[in-house]
Amino acid sequence: MSGLLEPGAARGLGLADDEAVLEAMVDVESAWLRVQGRLGLLTPDEVAVAARDGLGADDLDAGWLADWAEGAGNPVPALVEVLRAGARGNGVPDRVVTAIHRGLTSQDVVDTALVLVSRQALTRMGASLTAAGDAAARLAREHRDTLMLARTLTQPALPTTFGYKVTGWLGALDDAVVELRGVVRALPVQCGGAAGTLAAVEVLAPTRATLAVAMLAEELGLVDPGRPWHTDRGAMTRIGDVLVRCADVLGKIAADVLTLSRPEIGELQEPAAAGRGGSSTLPQKRNPVLSVLVRSVAIEAPYLGATLHAAAGLAVDERPDGAWHAEWGALLRLLRRVLVAGDQVREVLDGLVVDPTAMARNVWATGPDLLAERRHLTGAASDTDDDGPLGYLGVAVELVERAVDRHRSLDPGGPA
Amino acid sequence: MSGLLEPGAARGLGLADDEAVLEAMVDVESAWLRVQGRLGLLTPDEVAVAARDGLGADDLDAGWLADWAEGAGNPVPALVEVLRAGARGNGVPDRVVTAIHRGLTSQDVVDTALVLVSRQALTRMGASLTAAGDAAARLAREHRDTLMLARTLTQPALPTTFGYKVTGWLGALDDAVVELRGVVRALPVQCGGAAGTLAAVEVLAPTRATLAVAMLAEELGLVDPGRPWHTDRGAMTRIGDVLVRCADVLGKIAADVLTLSRPEIGELQEPAAAGRGGSSTLPQKRNPVLSVLVRSVAIEAPYLGATLHAAAGLAVDERPDGAWHAEWGALLRLLRRVLVAGDQVREVLDGLVVDPTAMARNVWATGPDLLAERRHLTGAASDTDDDGPLGYLGVAVELVERAVDRHRSLDPGGPA
Amino acid sequence: MSGLLEPGAARGLGLADDEAVLEAMVDVESAWLRVQGRLGLLTPDEVAVAARDGLGADDLDAGWLADWAEGAGNPVPALVEVLRAGARGNGVPDRVVTAIHRGLTSQDVVDTALVLVSRQALTRMGASLTAAGDAAARLAREHRDTLMLARTLTQPALPTTFGYKVTGWLGALDDAVVELRGVVRALPVQCGGAAGTLAAVEVLAPTRATLAVAMLAEELGLVDPGRPWHTDRGAMTRIGDVLVRCADVLGKIAADVLTLSRPEIGELQEPAAAGRGGSSTLPQKRNPVLSVLVRSVAIEAPYLGATLHAAAGLAVDERPDGAWHAEWGALLRLLRRVLVAGDQVREVLDGLVVDPTAMARNVWATGPDLLAERRHLTGAASDTDDDGPLGYLGVAVELVERAVDRHRSLDPGGPA
Amino acid sequence: MSGLLEPGAARGLGLADDEAVLEAMVDVESAWLRVQGRLGLLTPDEVAVAARDGLGADDLDAGWLADWAEGAGNPVPALVEVLRAGARGNGVPDRVVTAIHRGLTSQDVVDTALVLVSRQALTRMGASLTAAGDAAARLAREHRDTLMLARTLTQPALPTTFGYKVTGWLGALDDAVVELRGVVRALPVQCGGAAGTLAAVEVLAPTRATLAVAMLAEELGLVDPGRPWHTDRGAMTRIGDVLVRCADVLGKIAADVLTLSRPEIGELQEPAAAGRGGSSTLPQKRNPVLSVLVRSVAIEAPYLGATLHAAAGLAVDERPDGAWHAEWGALLRLLRRVLVAGDQVREVLDGLVVDPTAMARNVWATGPDLLAERRHLTGAASDTDDDGPLGYLGVAVELVERAVDRHRSLDPGGPA
Repeated sequence: MSGLLEPGAARGLGLADDEAVLEAMVDVESAWLRVQGRLGLLTPDEVAVAARDGLGADDLDAGWLADWAEGAGNPVPALVEVLRAGARGNGVPDRVVTAIHRGLTSQDVVDTALVLVSRQALTRMGASLTAAGDAAARLAREHRDTLMLARTLTQPALPTTFGYKVTGWLGALDDAVVELRGVVRALPVQCGGAAGTLAAVEVLAPTRATLAVAMLAEELGLVDPGRPWHTDRGAMTRIGDVLVRCADVLGKIAADVLTLSRPEIGELQEPAAAGRGGSSTLPQKRNPVLSVLVRSVAIEAPYLGATLHAAAGLAVDERPDGAWHAEWGALLRLLRRVLVAGDQVREVLDGLVVDPTAMARNVWATGPDLLAERRHLTGAASDTDDDGPLGYLGVAVELVERAVDRHRSLDPGGPA
Repeated sequence: MSGLLEPGAARGLGLADDEAVLEAMVDVESAWLRVQGRLGLLTPDEVAVAARDGLGADDLDAGWLADWAEGAGNPVPALVEVLRAGARGNGVPDRVVTAIHRGLTSQDVVDTALVLVSRQALTRMGASLTAAGDAAARLAREHRDTLMLARTLTQPALPTTFGYKVTGWLGALDDAVVELRGVVRALPVQCGGAAGTLAAVEVLAPTRATLAVAMLAEELGLVDPGRPWHTDRGAMTRIGDVLVRCADVLGKIAADVLTLSRPEIGELQEPAAAGRGGSSTLPQKRNPVLSVLVRSVAIEAPYLGATLHAAAGLAVDERPDGAWHAEWGALLRLLRRVLVAGDQVREVLDGLVVDPTAMARNVWATGPDLLAERRHLTGAASDTDDDGPLGYLGVAVELVERAVDRHRSLDPGGPA
Repeated sequence: MSGLLEPGAARGLGLADDEAVLEAMVDVESAWLRVQGRLGLLTPDEVAVAARDGLGADDLDAGWLADWAEGAGNPVPALVEVLRAGARGNGVPDRVVTAIHRGLTSQDVVDTALVLVSRQALTRMGASLTAAGDAAARLAREHRDTLMLARTLTQPALPTTFGYKVTGWLGALDDAVVELRGVVRALPVQCGGAAGTLAAVEVLAPTRATLAVAMLAEELGLVDPGRPWHTDRGAMTRIGDVLVRCADVLGKIAADVLTLSRPEIGELQEPAAAGRGGSSTLPQKRNPVLSVLVRSVAIEAPYLGATLHAAAGLAVDERPDGAWHAEWGALLRLLRRVLVAGDQVREVLDGLVVDPTAMARNVWATGPDLLAERRHLTGAASDTDDDGPLGYLGVAVELVERAVDRHRSLDPGGPA
Repeated sequence: MSGLLEPGAARGLGLADDEAVLEAMVDVESAWLRVQGRLGLLTPDEVAVAARDGLGADDLDAGWLADWAEGAGNPVPALVEVLRAGARGNGVPDRVVTAIHRGLTSQDVVDTALVLVSRQALTRMGASLTAAGDAAARLAREHRDTLMLARTLTQPALPTTFGYKVTGWLGALDDAVVELRGVVRALPVQCGGAAGTLAAVEVLAPTRATLAVAMLAEELGLVDPGRPWHTDRGAMTRIGDVLVRCADVLGKIAADVLTLSRPEIGELQEPAAAGRGGSSTLPQKRNPVLSVLVRSVAIEAPYLGATLHAAAGLAVDERPDGAWHAEWGALLRLLRRVLVAGDQVREVLDGLVVDPTAMARNVWATGPDLLAERRHLTGAASDTDDDGPLGYLGVAVELVERAVDRHRSLDPGGPA
């Protein structure tokens, strides 16, 4: 544990501090050695030696890397030095040691590593949201006909059902999953060399530089975008946008849970768990802490996503003078925060305590005004019997079924 | 012209102030009358009368609407009153007057109107970016081999060509066009009635409420999203995200033009035009004002886009208590600003003055260090003759051709 | 009324569109003529002629100015031309016509005009917040002992009084007023000429250029900051920060009103007014629209304030290449939005409907758990009789009195 | 080192992860024991025992705290438990163990701890900016007459001197120092108990609860604000605003250094240092990495500051449902980032390499147009000899002296 007031650590850049990023940077350098093998620049034996002995994040001293990172403005030069020294120490032949990072630039490694970490996080995010969607689909079906108030601008508007309300969450979760999958499928490798021209790679492997990029994409399971994107940060902002979108969807659910679990409304409660929701001083408190924490993410996330856009729009030259560096902290924090929020919403929905009696009580407490719209309409256009709020639910039930069916089609292996 | 210190106007909401939004709201109400005709709730004659005489934004007093808007929190109730009074005044039969807005809620009208306005703006934006791309493709091709410096972190890095640099702009413009088209294709109608259940529509046209939504989508050329999205603001944030993305792409181009048109660098100049770039006091000034203004949009746009996300993540209930209202100003300002910036970049690229001599001069001024990477590599891995910067361009030319071909494939009817 | 899709208007910059800004720019040019008179560069008669006949915003065609503004990147060159032509047309002598704007630069006029407009808006804001504070002080005093729930993380925590809750609003309002006054008192004139060196003024009035700045400050009732601030945007961000601070304070009040006016809680209601809070379709609705609109400002304002900071931090050279221009729209929108929100909160507090019975009901409904903290404490440290929630209010009453006294000290002429 | 993909750590809240925050929280709990001693609730011996043996952050397991933190929504309940267990283990008497945290609430501890950490960081920030100002004052004085171009909208505008340019940095640095000092002087203690009423403290020490707050403020060297500020987040936003202001000032300096160290302009260079400014692939590169990193902070900081405002404006109830929690990460990251940037700018200015020859060359390269304004003016108003750019510097020299004098008055003990 280090603190913000500690001078040394404070000057690091926050990239090499994260184990996942560090590992991903090593993965990129390893894959690049394999590409060099496929291009015939290294022998299969050399690649095998490098894979076995040469590169590994195990011995990396993150603190040292972070300190170094300031000098170069990014951690890659230090990482390369460490990897080369480590390889040399392990007896890896010089020809291989020299080949480490050869032809790449720092941005190739950092960008691709962030893409790899994002892939892991987005994939896990997709799983969380799908699981949250499973829980929502179950709630929607179970409470398809559970009468409750629809509220607009804080005031009772019309009757609805809790299942239909949950359908709003479910539809948004499912949309987010679809959008996440789209972003993950399109995640691109970054490989352009120092100026995006692949000049060094073309020297190493004449006429095969763009092939090398395709090979690197293949090694890492990423898309070859057809051109370097060092100056066009759409890949980063698309990751950011979809994460903020996830935060929005999660924030809406949290806002509803928080509102409906106010005891005066009393329609929902977060699942109870040992050590959850307590207060440092009020023994009786049962705070909806998961939703509280999710809401804090929904408040913060747009700012993190916007930082990525600001960086994109302020890029200049072939590598910008600060805008690139502004992406790292924002992206990593966004990944971390939204990942946790996804998990928390899944947990909330999995164990959400629903009180249909309270829902009904709030409907009846509103009185006949709740159906004023219908009386107004039917006075003019029909003479339907007034069978109370249950008779004025529109197509709520139909929309519940539609949303649950769609959810199943997105997650065929999920629970029935 | 009114000022921010004028008390009356100041309390309006900025929605009804915009002619385009006002017209779009009337378009939604008109389309809804046609839907009622298709459902048999109005006769063809009645629909025709309404279309001809009943609804029109011509006589709408925006100031009056804006004043009223505060009372309801949105301009629709006032608009409906005005439309009904106008229709009545034009002798439109009562049965039609009553049908205006019947079954809809304010949010249906506002959201759908903003979607319609966005469609117009995004479509025009797509045309601007395509035209800017045409100019970029021409520049890329023309300067495919024009030697210049690649600069990273403000310092000379390697040789590149201006055509390849422009390819970075072109690729981003084309990506943005593809993304814009994707968003436009998916723009959804909003139609859920007061609580998203379509209860009123279902009373008017039993079992056909969801059909009515599909019809409204059809009338307006929008997508039927299969569910109301009053509480899931992905439709709004997707519009916002793609607009900020456009601003990012435009901002990058502006940043490069601004940097390269510094006289000490002297490689580019904005097109000259009468009354353009002058100063209030320095007669000799020739300021790159278009790029300056575009850059100001790139600085502001992320904040506007983030406001839409903040609103989305803070939504609560079936219509939120402020988050919905926070969208309007941000979206409209974002549309307006990015639209203008697109047009300005197109103008910059159409007439960009390129100075290949200055580009070459800056390359040669850098000296032999510019090729240190190559010497380092070839010392180790090859013995290619040193034919200067022109011999170390990697795949720049190949990537120019690839980008120009792709641009043509996106805009088959465009200039060769 | 013009729309965002209207091509001409869309390219304007939003500065000259606002009557208040336009008038303030003319005020700056007029004051500068008076300064030239005081310096002896114009005769008293010439200054008088200019004042009487020469300068006036009456005939200014804002649309024309806005169109022109794009050419120069700001509206001042066009404005100067119009003012000179107008003066000439009114027979103002050439020596005076030439003196208009002489020695100033566009930024002197724009910055100072925005400061003048801000002063008017901040002053009015101060009056709104003071009036809101008067209402809050009245409520705090009146409900000093009105028992209600304190809620934390949405859940009942301890008993409090409504008067004490209002004290939280009052203290924040009063802090904001103090901060507003501080900002208003320090509002600086901008006067540096084309490069901040006052070179032209020093030619016109050798050795008296800094004196001229002091005179301009005096003429306009602004502070002479001792140096031009064209590149140091603290003056702008201080205005922005205090406005966002006001929005925060107002947003907190709105959030509480919105929560407590949910009918299930039922403790507060916004004042009723004709045409207020209605729905386009639900005749029974009584929406707390003022608080809803205030909340939308609280959501949007931080982004507008941050835009000013982004602009400040991205400034470069002696006048930045876009960052300056990004300030205008953000500042004007922030002024407008927060001004209206201040007025709305004043109106809410002036007529706020308080239901002490509902407050008591919610306290009693919570049951004995509400005092668990006290039982825990007194079990260990005292044996006070348990006299219910009224006996566990801590220093709420004392803090109410303290806050009301402080409010009176800030606004001695206010209501008792 | 842990990674964002590590499930356990990922759910922590980022407060207890920071050593400085953890220590500050323990400081608050310790000070509160001393207050209880001064109130006679503990004996001097008991307080001494607690001080010596009871409380210490040494053995705190941050990971464990972070895990626990999620359960309560904040780390304080876990911290209190650990402190009590530790004290018990050290043989501290039960009466003292029970007194730990008694009467406080989590927010008292978290808010005050963040204020304490902010004080340390802001104080160090003030020292950095003062040192940077010392360097700037030296540069301003040394280059008071060093001719260079003033540039506006990227283009040469008028002659200026480098000393005067630096004066713009100096004035902003000094303003920021003054503002920092103002914020530090007003940093308030937070002490209100569970609902802001000090009910528990009033039970422990009847009629002396507000005195206890004053004592706690005294113990910690903070201001007693006269009321709890759990719902009025001005204290947090003021810290945030001044930090963003510092980032703005630093960003402007970095932007100028970056621009003027482009080799085509060549007027400035960052100080050289071993391992500084290198590239992973280009051996010749000498990147201005300090300024690049500072600029990345200037891009990010406004978003972090705005997050604090968003949290403030969305606060509700006596402790908000997520808005409070959103402050922590934003504030800590802002402190960390701006602290480092201040240090980096100090280092840049301390060793800044200035090239007066290049400055002069760029002036002369502009040609006679640079003085067009003067020719225009003097044609009309005077007949001064044209003595070139050196004769058109206005009051630059005077303003340099004024700024240096002011700097000295702020830092009397600083270097001459």
